[in-house]
Amino acid sequence: MSVRADGGGCPFDEWARSVRARVEAALPRFLPSEETPPDRLHRAMRYALLGVGKRVRPLLAFAGGEVSGAPSERLEIVACAVEMIHIYSLVHDDLPCMDDDALRHGRPACHVEFGEAFALLVGDALQSLAFELLSHEGLGPRRAEMVGLLARASGSRGMAGGQAIDLAAVGRAIDREKLETMHALKTGALIRAAVVLGVLCGEPLNPEEMASVERFVQSAGLLFQVVDDILDYTASTAALGKTAGKDAAANKPTYVSLIGLSDARTFAAELHSQAVGALAPFGERGERLREIADFIMKREF
Amino acid sequence: MSVRADGGGCPFDEWARSVRARVEAALPRFLPSEETPPDRLHRAMRYALLGVGKRVRPLLAFAGGEVSGAPSERLEIVACAVEMIHIYSLVHDDLPCMDDDALRHGRPACHVEFGEAFALLVGDALQSLAFELLSHEGLGPRRAEMVGLLARASGSRGMAGGQAIDLAAVGRAIDREKLETMHALKTGALIRAAVVLGVLCGEPLNPEEMASVERFVQSAGLLFQVVDDILDYTASTAALGKTAGKDAAANKPTYVSLIGLSDARTFAAELHSQAVGALAPFGERGERLREIADFIMKREF
Repeated sequence: MSVRADGGGCPFDEWARSVRARVEAALPRFLPSEETPPDRLHRAMRYALLGVGKRVRPLLAFAGGEVSGAPSERLEIVACAVEMIHIYSLVHDDLPCMDDDALRHGRPACHVEFGEAFALLVGDALQSLAFELLSHEGLGPRRAEMVGLLARASGSRGMAGGQAIDLAAVGRAIDREKLETMHALKTGALIRAAVVLGVLCGEPLNPEEMASVERFVQSAGLLFQVVDDILDYTASTAALGKTAGKDAAANKPTYVSLIGLSDARTFAAELHSQAVGALAPFGERGERLREIADFIMKREF
Repeated sequence: MSVRADGGGCPFDEWARSVRARVEAALPRFLPSEETPPDRLHRAMRYALLGVGKRVRPLLAFAGGEVSGAPSERLEIVACAVEMIHIYSLVHDDLPCMDDDALRHGRPACHVEFGEAFALLVGDALQSLAFELLSHEGLGPRRAEMVGLLARASGSRGMAGGQAIDLAAVGRAIDREKLETMHALKTGALIRAAVVLGVLCGEPLNPEEMASVERFVQSAGLLFQVVDDILDYTASTAALGKTAGKDAAANKPTYVSLIGLSDARTFAAELHSQAVGALAPFGERGERLREIADFIMKREF
């Protein structure tokens, strides 16, 4: 695990706390109030989105912004947009026709609290709202590019596509390559989008620097999923805030089921090392991303 | 019904046929092929989107573009984006937890053909793809504005919000004002978006002209829904290509159930007249929009 030696910024925990506080304050401003009609839908959207989760993707966006010296007003917008996409996907994934999970973030899932039809609409409307945010003038002249990036990461060749591969894989033997493709889409695409959107909020990077960012997100995205698989196997439901052991029970392929717990841990360590290595060219500007790679890794160990 | 007297363009039917042909040719190009992984998801997206429907919203976008002299390359993109939003909403509305309709466009609904989970993902991915389309460089410097417009029209203060009001209204007595609000969101918002996106593809209009466009879309949007309610009451399932009498059977409020068939027809005629009246300042540039108002009206009579 890295320890900041440069003294150039506050400790990671403090930084993460301040980013989270900023995002928690911004999200309700970007959402219609509970009194805005249709009020039940807006209550349900706020229930699903506010005060929950680790806000890993917003942290990634802000950390990406450090690399390019991005203003925090812009980072706040893209961080909230990515988080809306992430939360919408959880709301839809929890539905009975998908993973059928009654528990999310330690509370009843959105469809349990508001009914399936409203949960469906909550997800649909959060996706729209994410793109509405990215159309914000304050994001500057590259905001259309940002829309394209987030849209592709969310769609059939990104997150939704990964979910489709996941569905098709339940109860079937799939190989490691296929599992990696699934994760690259299902979680990797949005993690990449979070970092790159953060980077795009600041000064343009040169092609070599962008290639380094890409190497980082490839490894960090997969790391996140491998650790998730390990946690699903080892952690308790209470610690996770969602139903543990669900993937194994559903006969879903995971890194643990495919290569075993020990090799999955070794693989995670390798990915962490690759992610950190990719940040070398950035020096201190890459410090927050490095700390996030540590943070993702630490979820398990 | 209007008849073109100016001789300045081809007859409406011919124009509509050529726009539809253009959209039918463009949509498959904007969709990933059936062979692109995840192939089942892409097959399902193509099943839901291709070769179905009247393409009313694409017609509206192209007709809006006539008002501002928009190039057809741009209109093609926004027309396909709006149609993707429309079709995604149908796929989700047909799900068992919503309207539970097994028939759409005269064929098995998407979830009947591909399963509920895939239908959910088809809708989600079509929404993402719509915004990916609007990020296209070819749409010029106002494309971020277009994204914001379509996002708002699709979300909780637009189409998804109207659906939420509709859900909450089933089996309850609602007044005419509430019914109008519901329709303004559920169908009106996307109809407005189609026309305004078309307009935004061309030369900027002055504020008075934009106000005329707004007056047109308010009336035309509501007209569309009133006619839909009448058709649901009077037409056969075969003629509609979807289950007829569904709204009445589900005890859903409609204009027919609220004010009766005869008054609903009178109201439709008034809205048609208002819509056509709003186009007066545009002269020949407004002719296609006027013909579409006729076309919407003619669906019934």
